[in-house]
Amino acid sequence: MGRWEPGARARLRDAALDLFSEHGYEQTTVAQIAARAELTERTFYRHFADKREVLFDGQEQFVARFVDPMATSPTKDVPGSAGALDLVAAALRGAGSWFTPAMKEFATRRQAVIEAEPSLRERELLKLGSLADALADALVARGVPTDRAALAAQAGVSVFRVAFARWIASGDDRSLQDHLDRALDELRSLTAQP
Amino acid sequence: MGRWEPGARARLRDAALDLFSEHGYEQTTVAQIAARAELTERTFYRHFADKREVLFDGQEQFVARFVDPMATSPTKDVPGSAGALDLVAAALRGAGSWFTPAMKEFATRRQAVIEAEPSLRERELLKLGSLADALADALVARGVPTDRAALAAQAGVSVFRVAFARWIASGDDRSLQDHLDRALDELRSLTAQP
Repeated sequence: MGRWEPGARARLRDAALDLFSEHGYEQTTVAQIAARAELTERTFYRHFADKREVLFDGQEQFVARFVDPMATSPTKDVPGSAGALDLVAAALRGAGSWFTPAMKEFATRRQAVIEAEPSLRERELLKLGSLADALADALVARGVPTDRAALAAQAGVSVFRVAFARWIASGDDRSLQDHLDRALDELRSLTAQP
Repeated sequence: MGRWEPGARARLRDAALDLFSEHGYEQTTVAQIAARAELTERTFYRHFADKREVLFDGQEQFVARFVDPMATSPTKDVPGSAGALDLVAAALRGAGSWFTPAMKEFATRRQAVIEAEPSLRERELLKLGSLADALADALVARGVPTDRAALAAQAGVSVFRVAFARWIASGDDRSLQDHLDRALDELRSLTAQP
């Protein structure tokens, strides 16, 4: 097999998820993943540092999907209260458009593997922590005061987590974007002054 | 040294934090911690599974401080919007009263060790994830619908994280409770409809 394998990365990812789902994460070796993908272990390690990273591929693109729309959002009144959450809403729309219906099956199986393994849950939480940091930085870049930015970023990640969990758990065709919109509305009503 | 050592747990915790701060977490061994505390390694392992767990001692009490006040809070109108966040506010008051000014120095040093080490950051995030789950369960037990409970719990943890970070970072005498109150108000204003 040559150095360049078209689609190798996607094949390794699919093979890994199949094996993790069938035999468990701990029980699966890099050798087995490479064999299932009909590639060599060397090719595996050209793409991923270890088997855990297969499940966390695309972290930079994931964060960019949130952050990029914030840089260009025409939101007015950014230093004010509503502006920060409007920017977070723009970020959530960016993320919502990335997770297409076709990705739901993959996302659902991936989540089941992660939930079953504490070390993977920790890694997933760290990823969401990095997302919150990136959102806060992007809010500050748009003029939101630092303290407010941290809180708005955390709130945005909370909305994403809740909406994503509902999307994964639901048996219907509703898009992640629908769930995100609804969760953001709920956050607004939850915190409305009585 | 006998099997029962009064104050052994606290001595091991203080010794570990001293050594982690002085030499780094990775560079510190259980043998060094035990020696600094003038105890045996056997005594160490009677109290803690490993050196990491020294930093996460008291997780159950930590969660209980949030959850217990929710069970007895006289909050009315729980299934409604404001009720859920009022219960979260009661939880935050419980946590705020636990972190006394005397604990600030320990908490600050502990946080510095954790921030320096990715594996500890992951463990800390998992702890906060467990807290969110426990808050959500307590909200459901008070009649809050499941979906709303998950979001309110996440919002509560967000407020706690932001307030705790500010408390640690601040050089003044303001209590954690002050920071929690302020962050909760900010969340309300952040999400207020324009």
